[in-house]
Amino acid sequence: MTTLELRPFYCPIEPAIHPEVDEVERRAIEWIDRFRFYSGETGRARVLGTNSAEFYARFAPAACREGLQAAVHWVYWGFAFDDTRCDSGEFSADPVKFLAMAGPLQQALENPWHAPPGDDPYVAALQDIGRAFAACATPVQVRRFTDAHRAWLFGVAWQIANCAAGRMPTLADYTAMRPNAAGGPPTLAMLEIALGQEVPAAEMDSPAVRALTEMAMLVAAWDNDLHSHRKETTEDHTDQNLINVLRVHEGLPPADALAEAYRLRDRVMTRFLELRDQVAADPRTSSALRAYLRCLGHAIRGNTDWALRVPRYSGYGESPRPGGAAWADGPSDPRPGPLPIPAIAWWWDSL
Amino acid sequence: MTTLELRPFYCPIEPAIHPEVDEVERRAIEWIDRFRFYSGETGRARVLGTNSAEFYARFAPAACREGLQAAVHWVYWGFAFDDTRCDSGEFSADPVKFLAMAGPLQQALENPWHAPPGDDPYVAALQDIGRAFAACATPVQVRRFTDAHRAWLFGVAWQIANCAAGRMPTLADYTAMRPNAAGGPPTLAMLEIALGQEVPAAEMDSPAVRALTEMAMLVAAWDNDLHSHRKETTEDHTDQNLINVLRVHEGLPPADALAEAYRLRDRVMTRFLELRDQVAADPRTSSALRAYLRCLGHAIRGNTDWALRVPRYSGYGESPRPGGAAWADGPSDPRPGPLPIPAIAWWWDSL
Repeated sequence: MTTLELRPFYCPIEPAIHPEVDEVERRAIEWIDRFRFYSGETGRARVLGTNSAEFYARFAPAACREGLQAAVHWVYWGFAFDDTRCDSGEFSADPVKFLAMAGPLQQALENPWHAPPGDDPYVAALQDIGRAFAACATPVQVRRFTDAHRAWLFGVAWQIANCAAGRMPTLADYTAMRPNAAGGPPTLAMLEIALGQEVPAAEMDSPAVRALTEMAMLVAAWDNDLHSHRKETTEDHTDQNLINVLRVHEGLPPADALAEAYRLRDRVMTRFLELRDQVAADPRTSSALRAYLRCLGHAIRGNTDWALRVPRYSGYGESPRPGGAAWADGPSDPRPGPLPIPAIAWWWDSL
Repeated sequence: MTTLELRPFYCPIEPAIHPEVDEVERRAIEWIDRFRFYSGETGRARVLGTNSAEFYARFAPAACREGLQAAVHWVYWGFAFDDTRCDSGEFSADPVKFLAMAGPLQQALENPWHAPPGDDPYVAALQDIGRAFAACATPVQVRRFTDAHRAWLFGVAWQIANCAAGRMPTLADYTAMRPNAAGGPPTLAMLEIALGQEVPAAEMDSPAVRALTEMAMLVAAWDNDLHSHRKETTEDHTDQNLINVLRVHEGLPPADALAEAYRLRDRVMTRFLELRDQVAADPRTSSALRAYLRCLGHAIRGNTDWALRVPRYSGYGESPRPGGAAWADGPSDPRPGPLPIPAIAWWWDSL
């Protein structure tokens, strides 16, 4: 069993973190202990060990406190839910069970004022988050978050169905599925809530901003695959991740699959920076959108800054990897054209 | 085997239909024959027999032609998809298969400019609809439709999971699931596209308008259950519909379950009319929202006007039921308070 080395990431964006991260974390831990969506001390340690306050404080370094606090609660909740009900556990390969649980859960979020039957602590905690958003966010932001939440659960259901069928998705399907299944939509929908600025609908739903949002989700999701992969053996072909997709469907040996994964990721990163500059250069771009686009960049950078320290990826007990070695000076594949993946090729269209 | 009688519906809304329905239908048939998402002459007759042009011409009697045409294409497509891949057929009790098909399908709609691998005629037709909406609707309207489309597929996946497990949902879960699974979200998201007027985001996402949209979906979905039920025998407890939910979980005999279904439906109808009047009386309500709210009413009324004539419900070969007998003068349950169903009780809150 050998492990593949993590390489430097191309991400020419400065690191940043919200100054009140420690206080936000302290209050989040109180909140977690109120809803107790964990099992025993081990479960609690695992939830706290996700460093979710740090995670989102890096995503939204200029957030207002109330929105950031609620967003951080969801991140802790989301990692716990992911660990126990998506990636492993009784639901993780059983779409019949997962859908019967996730359907009512989503409904409970959309209407957080009336408790549904049952006593699922995940539902109670999620309704509390829904009420917090209703108090600090606009109705448009709340609706964006709930739609994004459903997109996540739909992506997870698809991933679980693949798992149940023992099916490794193709690169085309995996690229369409993974950003949603990895929680990208709700995580990024909370940015404008944390910032306390609503992005106007005509801007948020424009093709360019949709593409930028999706690109940030995909780079972060692929980066998570690269971080996770460090822990995995080269013999394990069953986990749905970018490296295994490239091995199984493109027939690449492990080292080549890893290099190809970095190339794909760097080409999306390059397009993200280019298109973001283009939108920022437009004098009609609102200040709310400018703030949102800055946070998309913080999200990509912060996701890896967080991953390099968090036990979830670095391994429990290992010392954190020095951050300085993690960053590349340029893309591993400098070609500017579109990737030949139908779901995302449009990102290189004239937008 | 006895069948339960269809009773008059309480719906004090005048019937209406778009004057160009015949020309829209003619062009839609040409479109259907171009994409051929049917099997043989029987399949084609079944698609055309949904009378989808009439259906949506009743929903949006004041539509602009281009938007109505694209919407009607989706309705034909949606009924065909529902019949062959949701309610019956190889996917209808297999969430693993359904999700592997519906995930890429949804992605193909969100990015209709690049064809995914494969040659599924449903995918090709849906991408054509996506491109038509991109040409005639605003980016906000397009995004609303694609989000609504995902909500539908998520609801269908939940329904299919219930089917796979042989599980009759509770009234709480069924009420949360059915409006989405019945296609309510995409059907109503097309109203403003057909009308050619974008409802401002702050209005569309306001609690009152969200509630009105959801109420229209629920009444129409429950009405479809009542229409479908005419064809079913009283011995069949397995189909997921409101009457069977009330039989199985509330222990009601068939006739009582039917009466209770009408009572539930009439109480939502009453609240819809009351809240719609309240929003319409607000002088700040935009003309686009007013037009949209009128169409929500046309949707409830038109859904039953259509159902009373269409072979899908009235039975192939049967003569249409006279429309005059179908309408009640008042609600079968005049109580104004909230229904004791967690997912919808908030509709009676102060909105």
